[in-house]
Amino acid sequence: MAGQQAPVRVGILLSGRGSNFLALHAAIERGEVPGAEIALVASNVPEAVGLAKAKDLGLATFSVDHRGLDRGDHERALLVALRVARVEWLCLAGYMRKLSPVLVGAFPRRILNIHPSLLPAFPGLHAQRQALDYGVRVAGCTVHLVDDGLDSGPMVEQRTVPVNDGDTEDALSARILESEHQAYAFALRRLLSEPWRVEGRRVRFGPDSNQM
Amino acid sequence: MAGQQAPVRVGILLSGRGSNFLALHAAIERGEVPGAEIALVASNVPEAVGLAKAKDLGLATFSVDHRGLDRGDHERALLVALRVARVEWLCLAGYMRKLSPVLVGAFPRRILNIHPSLLPAFPGLHAQRQALDYGVRVAGCTVHLVDDGLDSGPMVEQRTVPVNDGDTEDALSARILESEHQAYAFALRRLLSEPWRVEGRRVRFGPDSNQM
Repeated sequence: MAGQQAPVRVGILLSGRGSNFLALHAAIERGEVPGAEIALVASNVPEAVGLAKAKDLGLATFSVDHRGLDRGDHERALLVALRVARVEWLCLAGYMRKLSPVLVGAFPRRILNIHPSLLPAFPGLHAQRQALDYGVRVAGCTVHLVDDGLDSGPMVEQRTVPVNDGDTEDALSARILESEHQAYAFALRRLLSEPWRVEGRRVRFGPDSNQM
Repeated sequence: MAGQQAPVRVGILLSGRGSNFLALHAAIERGEVPGAEIALVASNVPEAVGLAKAKDLGLATFSVDHRGLDRGDHERALLVALRVARVEWLCLAGYMRKLSPVLVGAFPRRILNIHPSLLPAFPGLHAQRQALDYGVRVAGCTVHLVDDGLDSGPMVEQRTVPVNDGDTEDALSARILESEHQAYAFALRRLLSEPWRVEGRRVRFGPDSNQM
């Protein structure tokens, strides 16, 4: 898959500080995601800190404010920019809007998201607080392919961290975030460098024994 | 706590082969749960393999078939035996019936269960198959205090295992079972030897800072 081919052009969508984008960028710079390059960093928040950091890194950026646009029109505007940048894979990095069929359909099984819980537990907002309130002893993160649901697509990678007695939401979130930074690059590398397929809800890596 | 006091008398409820009972018994024999002794192994299935193994180990056993009895009457019969054996803590080890308020109320926050998933994901039957079908990348087990719900009480310990590509339900179940055998003894040891309390849904170990 990787190797001598042209790099896979990865687009990033973010709404905030973009810490997962920065970790992914650093991993690519270190050569940990062979065959990937970041082609565009786009946002629904023109003043997003992550967008400014992308500019500082010399990356192409694009933003279109979602306010005043309906969801489909907003995504069509993003899609134009992603297509101009010839983006092939899309990585959501703290993109705080649920995707509509416009974007999901434009990148079928080529959109990744990362969520700060061990899905299917604690989907949605404030996953870390949900986990603490529920009293779990183990937390973590999930990298998954994006479908039309909320944090519901097939899972590519999960990493766990302990929940410590006395953990605050901030302390647990910071521990999970470290695992996110490792999991996202790992998942993207596997998807770009190994054969894989989706069977039911399972992502199966390795050669398809049914076709051998 | 532990120490010079009389051992804590632990009752076991099981319905099948009792592998978690045997692992707990072995851990106690190895001195890994100081201050605990198994006072009675009871079952709703007179022919349960785990019950026969308890007899072989020289432990006191008791069974009362649940068939033909309503749930409350069945549990009252078990409760008589548990009280005669002066049981203080109850450990469910593959006990395939949901407890009613009769037993839950008789041992408030003194009943432990182990479930082969990372709760709150995949409660109920066939948790390992549920996890495989859902496509999780990490699975595990949960030791929790039993309340009136299904696999819903405050959690004491969780252990994780990887899900491998190509895992069958049997392969994953065996891997989770190994983690169960470690987690159950660990959880019981902590509960018997450390200060702890329940705050909301969280089990908090350590001294209560609000009372220092």
